[in-house]
Amino acid sequence: MGGDHAPGAIVEGALIAAPLLNRKLLLVGKPDVLAHHLPKTLPSNIEVVPAAETVEMDEKPTDAYRKKKNSSLLVAVNLVKEGQAGAMVSAGNTGAANSFSLLVWRQIPGIHRPAIAIRLPNRHGGFVLLDAGASPDVDPEHLVEFAVMGRAYAKALMGRKNPKVHLLNIGEEPSKGNAFAKQAFNLLQQKSWFAGNIEGNDIYRKHCDVVVCDAFVGNVLLKASEGVAEMIAAFLRDAVPSKAHVRWMYYPVKWVTAPLKAQIDYAERGGAPLLGLNGLCVICHGRSNAKAIKNALLMTQTALDNELVTSIRDTINSDD
Amino acid sequence: MGGDHAPGAIVEGALIAAPLLNRKLLLVGKPDVLAHHLPKTLPSNIEVVPAAETVEMDEKPTDAYRKKKNSSLLVAVNLVKEGQAGAMVSAGNTGAANSFSLLVWRQIPGIHRPAIAIRLPNRHGGFVLLDAGASPDVDPEHLVEFAVMGRAYAKALMGRKNPKVHLLNIGEEPSKGNAFAKQAFNLLQQKSWFAGNIEGNDIYRKHCDVVVCDAFVGNVLLKASEGVAEMIAAFLRDAVPSKAHVRWMYYPVKWVTAPLKAQIDYAERGGAPLLGLNGLCVICHGRSNAKAIKNALLMTQTALDNELVTSIRDTINSDD
Repeated sequence: MGGDHAPGAIVEGALIAAPLLNRKLLLVGKPDVLAHHLPKTLPSNIEVVPAAETVEMDEKPTDAYRKKKNSSLLVAVNLVKEGQAGAMVSAGNTGAANSFSLLVWRQIPGIHRPAIAIRLPNRHGGFVLLDAGASPDVDPEHLVEFAVMGRAYAKALMGRKNPKVHLLNIGEEPSKGNAFAKQAFNLLQQKSWFAGNIEGNDIYRKHCDVVVCDAFVGNVLLKASEGVAEMIAAFLRDAVPSKAHVRWMYYPVKWVTAPLKAQIDYAERGGAPLLGLNGLCVICHGRSNAKAIKNALLMTQTALDNELVTSIRDTINSDD
Repeated sequence: MGGDHAPGAIVEGALIAAPLLNRKLLLVGKPDVLAHHLPKTLPSNIEVVPAAETVEMDEKPTDAYRKKKNSSLLVAVNLVKEGQAGAMVSAGNTGAANSFSLLVWRQIPGIHRPAIAIRLPNRHGGFVLLDAGASPDVDPEHLVEFAVMGRAYAKALMGRKNPKVHLLNIGEEPSKGNAFAKQAFNLLQQKSWFAGNIEGNDIYRKHCDVVVCDAFVGNVLLKASEGVAEMIAAFLRDAVPSKAHVRWMYYPVKWVTAPLKAQIDYAERGGAPLLGLNGLCVICHGRSNAKAIKNALLMTQTALDNELVTSIRDTINSDD
């Protein structure tokens, strides 16, 4: 029920994904509203789970948790807790998805702060950045936990065999950064898989697997990257004249912007898992279209097939 | 003498700028090395000031300051201190330029941390971001000082009459962010020109004049933005086939990428001033070409013509 184009785009994405999934898909929400978007005969692996309420996009998570015991979000979180679902995917209120998951599932022992892991593109197959926005106030020690979770992600979802971890910093040398980054560097340095500092431009230039930072920095980086890509797309569009008799000459521009779009389009990435909890919550962009939802569902299936949560639980205290 | 293409590109940029400047240009460095790049008869407003040593790009600022009393950087900083120059422009070791300026000129009374102000493009004429990298460890109070300096910049260099200040944050609402951002918000809120929080994507989408953040976040944002723009340019290049008999069909791509290049090219911006000191130091990108140096010199002249440093000194305690 959550997302700018919900439930239409969500249901559409689920219907596209259903035949590609090896498991059941539970659509949690108001049955009468969902019925408008569903075919009369449901695909064999889609089922509707009724939930009478919805958490609004701008609703305060704590209020929603207290007041709406039948919200689609809380019903979905409880399905995972009770073992009736393996994971939850949401394009709704991110803060609410984060805090409901945390409150109901709790952290994996050994993990103190959950983190959102987001896959970003670069010229070497991309990397995973965390925390992209879950835990704004953390200590340097928590970045070591993020690193272990990031390694589990890179193995389960990116096929990296022995993923290295970089610390996002404002210089490459060990002595660079603010007090927080210097302390994090010293802690990470004790790990065999630590690859040192990396700067904000080099994450897009160099090969890297996992990049860790606090949620404030990660969220600013993520959104600024998105903003620059959008601005460039807008400048490119503005440069194409609107008059039809000139416009056709610009047709070849499409040949170069189409592959670019595939590289930087958030919809290709699908979703970003919230890691560190006893359950898997995949957060989608609020403006997710059907394609984004489909890709998020496929990504979630890969995470489940590769037992991402179990692998974090198994390695959190032993990944040196 | 500093920069990846120094002194060739620096001298070339100075020669292009000289006829456009209403003041004298002092080239500080090794006379015999500079002579190779200079015409036999110098333009009337160019003069060489000899300096026997140079600070290397990777040299530790404190070491260089102690050991090299005749470095071109220290000679230039002293020329400003003694009133023989109005400002210094450098494409060399940024850390050294920052710390030499701080050590010799000291802060303007009322300012506790200097900040690098960098102008970034957006779809509404751009904005100035600070701190882009000068002071990694700051308190929330220092962001108020950055805001006042940013306003002086926006008036002197961007022609904004009553510039507003936004706080870079990970959400728009007042309650958003980490502890640092929340404290900064409360302090900034007391100012008439404070316009609230702004997110990393919205700085490139919405109209804004001045955006403040700490140097760690600012530097990550700046470099990530640069990295994304470079990556997109690379993807666009890669999409154009290299075979000549197909390549010509892609010619119109240039029509759209040329204006884009002008918008996002760092060389168009020229340089970024270090603000808050009793003197003006303009930092250029290490890889500055002649065009970047020319633009940095023209920007510096505008800053001097509009008395940027004096205006910061006059408003730091009264800009409410």
